Amino acid sequence: MSHTVREKQKLLNRVRRIRGQVEAVERALEAEAGCAEVMHLIAACRGAINGLLVEVLEDHIETHLTVREPLPDRDGPDAAGELIDIIRSYMK
Amino acid sequence: MSHTVREKQKLLNRVRRIRGQVEAVERALEAEAGCAEVMHLIAACRGAINGLLVEVLEDHIETHLTVREPLPDRDGPDAAGELIDIIRSYMK
Amino acid sequence: MSHTVREKQKLLNRVRRIRGQVEAVERALEAEAGCAEVMHLIAACRGAINGLLVEVLEDHIETHLTVREPLPDRDGPDAAGELIDIIRSYMK
Amino acid sequence: MSHTVREKQKLLNRVRRIRGQVEAVERALEAEAGCAEVMHLIAACRGAINGLLVEVLEDHIETHLTVREPLPDRDGPDAAGELIDIIRSYMK
Repeated sequence: MSHTVREKQKLLNRVRRIRGQVEAVERALEAEAGCAEVMHLIAACRGAINGLLVEVLEDHIETHLTVREPLPDRDGPDAAGELIDIIRSYMK
Repeated sequence: MSHTVREKQKLLNRVRRIRGQVEAVERALEAEAGCAEVMHLIAACRGAINGLLVEVLEDHIETHLTVREPLPDRDGPDAAGELIDIIRSYMK
Repeated sequence: MSHTVREKQKLLNRVRRIRGQVEAVERALEAEAGCAEVMHLIAACRGAINGLLVEVLEDHIETHLTVREPLPDRDGPDAAGELIDIIRSYMK
Repeated sequence: MSHTVREKQKLLNRVRRIRGQVEAVERALEAEAGCAEVMHLIAACRGAINGLLVEVLEDHIETHLTVREPLPDRDGPDAAGELIDIIRSYMK
């Protein structure tokens, strides 16, 4: 079963929260709120979408991929863990 | 008048399109679509939000800021134009 | 005087530190270090370059631009400050 | 053998080119070039580092990971290919 099916409820909750954040931008524009407020609301949406993408990529790696060739001589995270680490620090 | 008021209609159209894209992610999750499709839909939302933020930042610079000290000896864009250029290439 | 001239020494120090970080990637590749180490060194270079670009953009805004139309009814940062705020949170 | 060893020469060439780009920023600052030029040189370094990181992540995925659970009913790229696709579009 795909991870987006297995994690359906968790992901739906996140997406609905993001929809709420996009609607907040819409309401702020309609109410003619100040531009600083609008920009901060948009930046918050962006952060939330990035967080969702990172979460789905992590689930994707953990579900569909497995380590073929271990990293030599290591105590730290395995090859999949290292990948997730870099993705997380890049997209945060 | 703030740019988010002056450009209200244009920005509302963009935000509503983004809301539609977030709802497409929601529908794909509910329909248990494949994870590749879900990931591409999320990535598309992210691109659209980035595009909106760049647009609002450009309006912000053009509305609220003006050149105080021109760039020396130049034919190219002025100091505001150069800033927009870098922001656009960074956030694209 | 342009900000990259006024802040020359501070920026040169940062760029030289970045050069050192790039050379560390080079040395790690030559020494056939593990891929996890190489990836982390590259990610660190990327963070340092992003930090430098944000710094130069801030200097650019503060030097060359000035507020033409103040944000209405506000106690917070002015229009330039809000812009810097968003750029910083975006590029961090 | 780790991919950063196998691809050592290719990666060293890229890193040395990046070092050259960082040195170009250094020289521009020393020569008191205009700030627009400096900003564009820094933005170019950033693009080059991002490109290098994407390349190493791709090698990492292809070397160390393998598909454990195939994507259902698909003609397109496999689970590793989809991941690379998203990373590439995100970091480009």
